[in-house]
Amino acid sequence: MVAMPVDQAEIRREAVERTDRALERLLPPVTQVPASIHGAMRHSVFAGGKRLRPMLAMEAARTINALHSGPGSKNQLPDGIEDLGAAIEMLHTYSLIHDDLPALDNDDLRRGKPTCHVAFGEAIAILAGDALQTLAYQTLASMRCSAQRAIKIIGLIAEATGTVEGMIGGQVLDLEGEHTKPTSESVTAIHRAKTGALIRVSIVSGGVYAGANDDDVRRLTEFGTKAGLAFQIIDDVLDMTQDSEHLGKTAGKDVASDKATWPAIFGIEASRRDAIRLINEAFAALEPWGDAAEGLRAVARYLVERTH
Amino acid sequence: MVAMPVDQAEIRREAVERTDRALERLLPPVTQVPASIHGAMRHSVFAGGKRLRPMLAMEAARTINALHSGPGSKNQLPDGIEDLGAAIEMLHTYSLIHDDLPALDNDDLRRGKPTCHVAFGEAIAILAGDALQTLAYQTLASMRCSAQRAIKIIGLIAEATGTVEGMIGGQVLDLEGEHTKPTSESVTAIHRAKTGALIRVSIVSGGVYAGANDDDVRRLTEFGTKAGLAFQIIDDVLDMTQDSEHLGKTAGKDVASDKATWPAIFGIEASRRDAIRLINEAFAALEPWGDAAEGLRAVARYLVERTH
Repeated sequence: MVAMPVDQAEIRREAVERTDRALERLLPPVTQVPASIHGAMRHSVFAGGKRLRPMLAMEAARTINALHSGPGSKNQLPDGIEDLGAAIEMLHTYSLIHDDLPALDNDDLRRGKPTCHVAFGEAIAILAGDALQTLAYQTLASMRCSAQRAIKIIGLIAEATGTVEGMIGGQVLDLEGEHTKPTSESVTAIHRAKTGALIRVSIVSGGVYAGANDDDVRRLTEFGTKAGLAFQIIDDVLDMTQDSEHLGKTAGKDVASDKATWPAIFGIEASRRDAIRLINEAFAALEPWGDAAEGLRAVARYLVERTH
Repeated sequence: MVAMPVDQAEIRREAVERTDRALERLLPPVTQVPASIHGAMRHSVFAGGKRLRPMLAMEAARTINALHSGPGSKNQLPDGIEDLGAAIEMLHTYSLIHDDLPALDNDDLRRGKPTCHVAFGEAIAILAGDALQTLAYQTLASMRCSAQRAIKIIGLIAEATGTVEGMIGGQVLDLEGEHTKPTSESVTAIHRAKTGALIRVSIVSGGVYAGANDDDVRRLTEFGTKAGLAFQIIDDVLDMTQDSEHLGKTAGKDVASDKATWPAIFGIEASRRDAIRLINEAFAALEPWGDAAEGLRAVARYLVERTH
C-alpha cells in the first residue's frame, strides 16, 4: 500500500463540521413548539463539544471503506455517516445533561457554559436529556445504510449505553463508589462501562456502517476498548492538572468527591505512561490494515495528546 | 366472514401474561451488577400495570394477521409480538418514573406503590428511567420480524415519544400549562401528544409488525388517534371521581395543580359522552375489516369502560 499522509487537524475539522451540520439539521429549531425543550437540547448539543465520538465513527468507517472497496473509494467517507456520528453525540450529550443534575454530580459548569438545568431548570433538563436519547434512535432508524446494518448498529449502541457493562451501568457504579476507596479493579470497571463502552461502540458502529465483517469488528472492538480506557485515563489526569477555565468544566471535582480515578491510584506520571502503553496496544490490533487505518490512529493519538 | 366470539377478559389475561413473561426475560435480574438500578427498573415495571399498550399492539397485529394471512392463521398472534409490547411498556414506564420526579409532578404514589424515586432515591430513579428507554430500543432491535419492519417500527416509536407532537413534547406542554386556564385546544394538543401518541403508535406498530400495508396503517392511525383521546378523557374523569386507593395513584392531583383536563372544561358527564362518541368514531375506521377487528374493538371498549 502507498503511504497516505494524514493531517490530524484536517480530520478533526472535517468531523466537527460534518457533525455540527448534521446536528443542526436533525435537532428541531428553537422556534418549534414546545420551544423551551428545543432550546435546552440545542444549548447542550452546541456547547462546544469536541465531537470525538463522531470523529472515531467516521475514521473507522473510512478505514473499513478503504479495506473493502476499490482503490477509487480510498480515503472516502461512506454516504450519510455524519448521521451516525450525530446520533452518538446526542447520546453522549444526554448522559452529560443527566449526570450534571443536582441529584447526580450537581455540576453548574460544562464546556465553559452553565449546565442545562442551571440554564433551563431541572424539569426541562431531565426531559431534554430524555428527548436527546429518543432523537438519537429516531436518527439511527433513518440512516442511509441498509436496514440490516442499521438494526445491528442500534442493538450495539443500546447495549453499550445500557446498564450491563454499558454507560448507565458505569454511572451507577461511579455514584455508588463515591467516598469508598477505589481499587484498580473498580476504576477499570467504571471507566470501561461509563465512558469506554460508548467510545468503543462509536468505532465499531462506524465500521459496521461501512460493511465491516466479523474479523474487522473484532479488531475494531479491541482497538476501541484500549483507546477508550486511554482516553478516560487522560481525562482524569487533565481533571487533576488543569484549571477549570482551561477545561471548561469544574476542575478537581474528582479529588473533591473521592471519585475513582486512575491517577488517584497510580499517580499522574504512571497514568500518562499507562495511556501511551494502551494506545500502542490499540495500534497493534490495527497492524494488518497498514495505511488504511492511519486516520483512526491519528484520532487515537489526539485522544491522549489533547490538553482539554 | 363468520362471526367470531371475542372474550375481552381472555384477551386481557393473555396480553398481561405474555407481556409480563417477556419483561421478566428481557429485564436484567436484580442479582445483576449494578443491582440497585435493576431493582429500581423492576420495581416500576412490575408495579401492576394494566399492559394496555401491549394489549393494543397485540390486537392490532392479530387483526392485520387475520386480514392478510390464510384462514388458518386467523385469531393467531404473530411470533414474538410480545417483545414489541414489552418494549412499549418499558417506554411507558420510563415516562412515568421521570414524570413522578420531584422536579416534575412530584408524586409519591403510583399504582399503589411508592414511586421509583421514593423507593430508590432520585439519582437511581433518573438513571432507571433512562435505562428503560435504552432497553426498549435494544429490545426493538432484536425483534423477530424483518429488519425492514423493525427499523420502521423504531422510527415510528421514536417519533411518537419525542418532542414534536410526541410524548415528551406533551409532558412539556403539560408542565408549562399548569396554573394557566386550559382551553379545549390546549387540552386536546396535550392529550394527543402526552398519552395519545404512544397509544396510537402501539396500535400502528403492532400492525406493521404483522405486515400492515399503507391503507392498513392509515386506518390503524385513525383508530388509534381517536381511541387514545378517549382513553385520556376517561383517565381525567377517573382522577376526579375515584379515590386514591382505588386508582393506585394520588387522586385529584389534576384539579389541585390546575392541570389541563377534559372534565375541567366540559364537565364529567359531557366528558363521558365525548369518550363514547370518540370510540364510536374509532370503530368506524375499522368498519371494512368486519370481524377481523373484533379483538381491537374489545380492547378499545375496555379503555373507556374501566374503573381505574
